[in-house]
Amino acid sequence: MDAAARDAQGSEVLEWRVTVPEGASVTVEHEAGAAGRACAWLVACVIMVRAAVAGFARKVWKIGADDPRRAVHALKVGLALTLVSIVYYTRPIYDGVGGNAMWAVMTVVVVFEYTVGGCVYKGFNRAVATVSAGLLALGVNWVAEKSGDKLQPVILSGSLFLLAAAATFSRFIPTVKSRFDYGVTIFILTYSLVAVSGYRVDELLDLAQQRMSTIGIGIVICLAICLVVWPVWAGQELHLVTVRNMEKLAGAVEGCVEDYFAAKPGQAAKSEGYKCVLNSKAMEDSQANLARWEPPHGRFRFRYPYAQYTKVGAAMRHCAYCVEALNSCVRAEVQAPEHVKRLLGDVCTRLAAQGARVLREASSSVSAMTSPKTLDFAVADMNTAVQELQVDLRALPPILAAESAAEMSLMDAMPLFTVASLLIEISARVEGVADAVDTLASLANFKLVEADDDDKKGQTEMKVHPLNEPGADASTQENPTTKHPEHA
Amino acid sequence: MDAAARDAQGSEVLEWRVTVPEGASVTVEHEAGAAGRACAWLVACVIMVRAAVAGFARKVWKIGADDPRRAVHALKVGLALTLVSIVYYTRPIYDGVGGNAMWAVMTVVVVFEYTVGGCVYKGFNRAVATVSAGLLALGVNWVAEKSGDKLQPVILSGSLFLLAAAATFSRFIPTVKSRFDYGVTIFILTYSLVAVSGYRVDELLDLAQQRMSTIGIGIVICLAICLVVWPVWAGQELHLVTVRNMEKLAGAVEGCVEDYFAAKPGQAAKSEGYKCVLNSKAMEDSQANLARWEPPHGRFRFRYPYAQYTKVGAAMRHCAYCVEALNSCVRAEVQAPEHVKRLLGDVCTRLAAQGARVLREASSSVSAMTSPKTLDFAVADMNTAVQELQVDLRALPPILAAESAAEMSLMDAMPLFTVASLLIEISARVEGVADAVDTLASLANFKLVEADDDDKKGQTEMKVHPLNEPGADASTQENPTTKHPEHA
Repeated sequence: MDAAARDAQGSEVLEWRVTVPEGASVTVEHEAGAAGRACAWLVACVIMVRAAVAGFARKVWKIGADDPRRAVHALKVGLALTLVSIVYYTRPIYDGVGGNAMWAVMTVVVVFEYTVGGCVYKGFNRAVATVSAGLLALGVNWVAEKSGDKLQPVILSGSLFLLAAAATFSRFIPTVKSRFDYGVTIFILTYSLVAVSGYRVDELLDLAQQRMSTIGIGIVICLAICLVVWPVWAGQELHLVTVRNMEKLAGAVEGCVEDYFAAKPGQAAKSEGYKCVLNSKAMEDSQANLARWEPPHGRFRFRYPYAQYTKVGAAMRHCAYCVEALNSCVRAEVQAPEHVKRLLGDVCTRLAAQGARVLREASSSVSAMTSPKTLDFAVADMNTAVQELQVDLRALPPILAAESAAEMSLMDAMPLFTVASLLIEISARVEGVADAVDTLASLANFKLVEADDDDKKGQTEMKVHPLNEPGADASTQENPTTKHPEHA
Repeated sequence: MDAAARDAQGSEVLEWRVTVPEGASVTVEHEAGAAGRACAWLVACVIMVRAAVAGFARKVWKIGADDPRRAVHALKVGLALTLVSIVYYTRPIYDGVGGNAMWAVMTVVVVFEYTVGGCVYKGFNRAVATVSAGLLALGVNWVAEKSGDKLQPVILSGSLFLLAAAATFSRFIPTVKSRFDYGVTIFILTYSLVAVSGYRVDELLDLAQQRMSTIGIGIVICLAICLVVWPVWAGQELHLVTVRNMEKLAGAVEGCVEDYFAAKPGQAAKSEGYKCVLNSKAMEDSQANLARWEPPHGRFRFRYPYAQYTKVGAAMRHCAYCVEALNSCVRAEVQAPEHVKRLLGDVCTRLAAQGARVLREASSSVSAMTSPKTLDFAVADMNTAVQELQVDLRALPPILAAESAAEMSLMDAMPLFTVASLLIEISARVEGVADAVDTLASLANFKLVEADDDDKKGQTEMKVHPLNEPGADASTQENPTTKHPEHA
């Protein structure tokens, strides 16, 4: 609507005002305005809803695109359920397991988990809990049947009360909670259903046999689909998240120090990688818990030391706490003057680079599952850098004293001292990470020589250089970029 | 067996050796030894088993004794199940809901959670998911019935595949995951059971109505027992853990600095209280998630800002990271010499005490749910202490320079500088906690004047002193010890 049109409308309104009483004119004006506003509001609503739907769709798409295995998992669940329903429709099997076939459906719905470990954990718990609770209930039912009509409900209800209470309480025991939580639920469920059913023992035996077979069918279908169609291994997830977090931590150590000594702090994304490490405990613990249920797969053999990954994770968090403190020093308002900073710039950057290198070598060793041979040299280099920093720190006061207003300069240098101390503390903690990775390597029997092309190159070059020559380290510094194709 | 008896036995063995051939004598000796060893082994086994059982029993007892509500929860579950089984045994209701009564049992087993929030969350999710999936399945079944015998299984299986896949994928959306995870499981379960059952729509309507009523009975029994018998509120748990963590953090700040300047570092327990704060994220998030389902109770009104507690928790963790770094400085091998430490001892201890005071006032304000009126003064006092520390730090180089070997002293003082810088950073983060608590107080409409006896005393004394007089703070410094009886 251009200005002329608006004027025309305005004159129309004015005409109206002449012909009708004033009160009505005001109302009409309001109505016209209200209708227009309602229209605008509707249009705005439609636009908003469209935007919201589009935004939601984008978000959902991103969730799938970030990790296509999620979409595959959804399709796998659909497939498993459809398979079960086909079993249900196929008459011979249907007649064999009777109306109990719903237990197969139920089993698939509740047992099918994202990771193989989750699936095995739930399947195992469901099977064992159903069998044990069923047998116990049969025994108690038999005793109750023998003790007469009057005592029977008392025995059944009493045993139900006691068992349910005891089983529920057992969930507060940490081991039970972490390994058998689902099993306890199924135990209580099965016991209640059997004990309360009111069937006679011989009827129950029939029922139990049917139910076992249906639950068995459900578990077998779940495990088969979970294992065959693009399996997601909790152990591998844990492995990958450890490797990724270690690389992020390396980037953060390097990034923080670079930001501190750079003219313009940038790279916030790189230097804040430590944040992923800080809150990873819950995720790592649950993955390690599930991973222990997984059968051997790929290079994750039977009794693979998944628990050690949580210790590596703890060492990384220990390091990340300090990086967090360092990062806040880097972003602090009060800073040492540039000319003071420059005195330690080189040595600090070198130390950070060495710390990052240790973390990257540790990460590539875990990633490739090879023995971290050069890690010790990297740690030794890092410790040399720590000593250099300490020497430079000791040399600092005389240099500053030589300048005018020495005391002021010393005071100004304090934030720099803090950064240096934190860096020294961080390198001690990086060494802790390296130690944890060393333990992991020996517990998991990481291979000494890797058959991978990239690693072979690294190994060959290592053999060319005597082990204690610095060149050996320079050649393996490329390692962090060589990821095992399986894990890339 | 005393020495004389052993001698007598020894001579007996000797006599044997005289009367039987040597080989046999050796065998007899061996047998006697083996039998003895077996005996000893058995005894050791029994002792070990007894010790293990006793140890396990002690552990279990401790779990219950630490928090008797756990034992009460177990009894509540037993009670709920027994009640449901009585409903099942009571003929009129039994006939009314038919064989579907098992759904009531199943509902109780899976819906009964430790906290009221968990119970409501699961009950609501189960009810809504059952109804919505049931209706949808009825609609699809109706369409399938109309489309003839050949298309029917295709439509039913196809819709099951698509819906199961879509629902499973929706669990990866964070909002769905945190609020409706259980509902999605039940949705898939109900839809599969109804769609696959093979019943006609009119039969299904009957079945659906029965199942709804049984699930309703289960949910009502769960909620009733959960709410009536010693309810555990997720919101209150979150509240208490926040208060407790804040006090532990206060103790850690104080303890670390006291340890640093004390002649002999002790109190490790006190100064390591920050560890509880570091890993509390997962627990706080889940409690806040459950708390939003809870009806208003006590002083937790409708739409109480539980989410702000997670922000207070995040601020506390932010502070704890720095306390962790400080703690490692305190326990470091390289320390500043005692005479240098002593120069900043008083002012650092004062700052730590002020920081701890801010945290304690914030904690007691949250605990008593009163507006943190004196918190601003405590923060101001803390900032004054920060400035004092900064002044003392600036005065340090001339003092050290006056001593002999000034440069060495300065270098030695470096660890002290780091401790001081970390303390300053910690007080900035403590202020962040205070800000988060302020926001919580305004969002949750914390009362301005508290009717409690202890708090009234505090308030009265506050009115006696003009607000900007330092005395006002001294009087309220007692506050941290006055806990609301409900929360003690």
